[in-house]
Amino acid sequence: MSSEFEVIERYFTRCGAQRTDVPLGVGDDAALLHCLAGKQLVAAIDTLVAGRHFLPTTPARSLGHRALAVNLSDLAAMGATPAWCLLALTLPRVDEIWLQDFASGLHDLAQQHELALVGGDTTAGSLCITVQILGHVEPGRGLRRQGASPGDVVYVSGTCGDAAAGLKLERGELLPSQAMDRQFLLQRFHFPTPRVALGQRLQSFASACIDVSDGLLGDAAKLAAASGCGVRLDFAAIPISEQLENVLGTDAARQLALVGGDDYELCFTVPASKVAAFERELPADRWQYQRIGELLATPGAAVHRAGTVMPIATGGYDHFSNA
Amino acid sequence: MSSEFEVIERYFTRCGAQRTDVPLGVGDDAALLHCLAGKQLVAAIDTLVAGRHFLPTTPARSLGHRALAVNLSDLAAMGATPAWCLLALTLPRVDEIWLQDFASGLHDLAQQHELALVGGDTTAGSLCITVQILGHVEPGRGLRRQGASPGDVVYVSGTCGDAAAGLKLERGELLPSQAMDRQFLLQRFHFPTPRVALGQRLQSFASACIDVSDGLLGDAAKLAAASGCGVRLDFAAIPISEQLENVLGTDAARQLALVGGDDYELCFTVPASKVAAFERELPADRWQYQRIGELLATPGAAVHRAGTVMPIATGGYDHFSNA
Repeated sequence: MSSEFEVIERYFTRCGAQRTDVPLGVGDDAALLHCLAGKQLVAAIDTLVAGRHFLPTTPARSLGHRALAVNLSDLAAMGATPAWCLLALTLPRVDEIWLQDFASGLHDLAQQHELALVGGDTTAGSLCITVQILGHVEPGRGLRRQGASPGDVVYVSGTCGDAAAGLKLERGELLPSQAMDRQFLLQRFHFPTPRVALGQRLQSFASACIDVSDGLLGDAAKLAAASGCGVRLDFAAIPISEQLENVLGTDAARQLALVGGDDYELCFTVPASKVAAFERELPADRWQYQRIGELLATPGAAVHRAGTVMPIATGGYDHFSNA
Repeated sequence: MSSEFEVIERYFTRCGAQRTDVPLGVGDDAALLHCLAGKQLVAAIDTLVAGRHFLPTTPARSLGHRALAVNLSDLAAMGATPAWCLLALTLPRVDEIWLQDFASGLHDLAQQHELALVGGDTTAGSLCITVQILGHVEPGRGLRRQGASPGDVVYVSGTCGDAAAGLKLERGELLPSQAMDRQFLLQRFHFPTPRVALGQRLQSFASACIDVSDGLLGDAAKLAAASGCGVRLDFAAIPISEQLENVLGTDAARQLALVGGDDYELCFTVPASKVAAFERELPADRWQYQRIGELLATPGAAVHRAGTVMPIATGGYDHFSNA
């Protein structure tokens, strides 16, 4: 009928997995979905804004991937199983190649997680991408930021700081000597891996969980505060990639890992009584996580290095103050 | 911890109704929700963009109301009962008075519909407001755009064109002689009334339904096309308010009612066999609807006036072409 509606029809009607629990998907006023009996629904929403969360040079395929990945990461942090998503896409113009790349980035990641795109809204304006995601969890089994206690061991998945370095590379603020390192760090920024399977397995062990989107130290501090605790992180234990270490050196790499944003790893706590079972059933070398510290009874967040407390400049990425 | 998080906490933690089916609301990585056993979930998402769906002069209270109303209207068109919503708010700056007014517009309408705000994301950028809404419907009872047949009677709720006139007034493109008329039309633009109760009652009678957001004629044509039909609307039957008639005259008022956007009324069809029961059980004077035409076996949309087909310039509001 008009370009707006055609855009939606063409690129998003068959985007993501085709699921049998979607009686009515994209194309009507709303979607109809079959809730799983006896499960709780898990719902999150996240926005990527041009010039804030990505640059004009960021490939559209990455944006489709990332807009979904940041939401999948929220579900991962709850231990949930993804099911459906909706897309609100604000575009300055209808660019078919951009749309095709964007849709394909979204589609591929959605397929991997058996997630269906069931609805959306396309509007004209400054580029802004909001994805809303829905999933399921057994009642009472959803992980939260609260629930941990002093003495619980703090872990983080994967490596941190890579995406922040990828952003610096894209901005031209960092120049790696090795093309391979550059490639890896850009990939980590453009195509983050939400830890959905790990989140689901953590249900049996973790006392609390948060996804690392605003910087490891700040997000660990948020988990601790929600649980009424403080947190001590061990600088030497902060996991960094070989590539980040190559580019920045060990010290600066760990500093960036503590405060850089966009990691989409999971930071979680395991009570001391469950640590042995956890590390046995989910071996660290296969599930890629690292012990990084401990929750404390006294509030606050601190990073320890060789027995002393390190001064850390910032405790989290703030979209309003870091313009 | 930082202004972004404080913004969310302060204005949106207790926004909307407090529901017992929300084990975990705003403040974690995702919300946890209890689905009603035996119901289908209904999900919609809609965005309002500054300069496109509203003007810099539009009051923040209206934006809070409208961002939710356009989504409630989508649920109304499905015959659904609203339950929860999530808010993705992109703001150029943190303006406490704006936020307070916005949150209060959202809160008041959410309260009226027993809807809880369960999650959100606040980001910095050009003003852009996305609400995602969730509700319930009995399986198989959700209304769709498809399902109607030739011969079904076409109805619309309320009056059309008021909001489009309200927008023209706000833009200074229209000057009413009566302050009362101006007041009414601006109110209709700023605070649309989603027809949620009507949508629910229509489940027993309507063969198809759509919410009128892009212009009555275009949306009726979409319903007809989804049902594999054409549609004939009767110009003399198009419902217009006394105030719109005062400002534009009868003819121009009906023209605007056909093509103006942002009405958020329901356009629906009732099979001829159910018309008598429908009009008896839901009296038109109480439920405020009007017969406006009929579905046809031949495709296309036409407006008839005194036995002749009227030429109509546009068949729907397009956010990309109507800049």
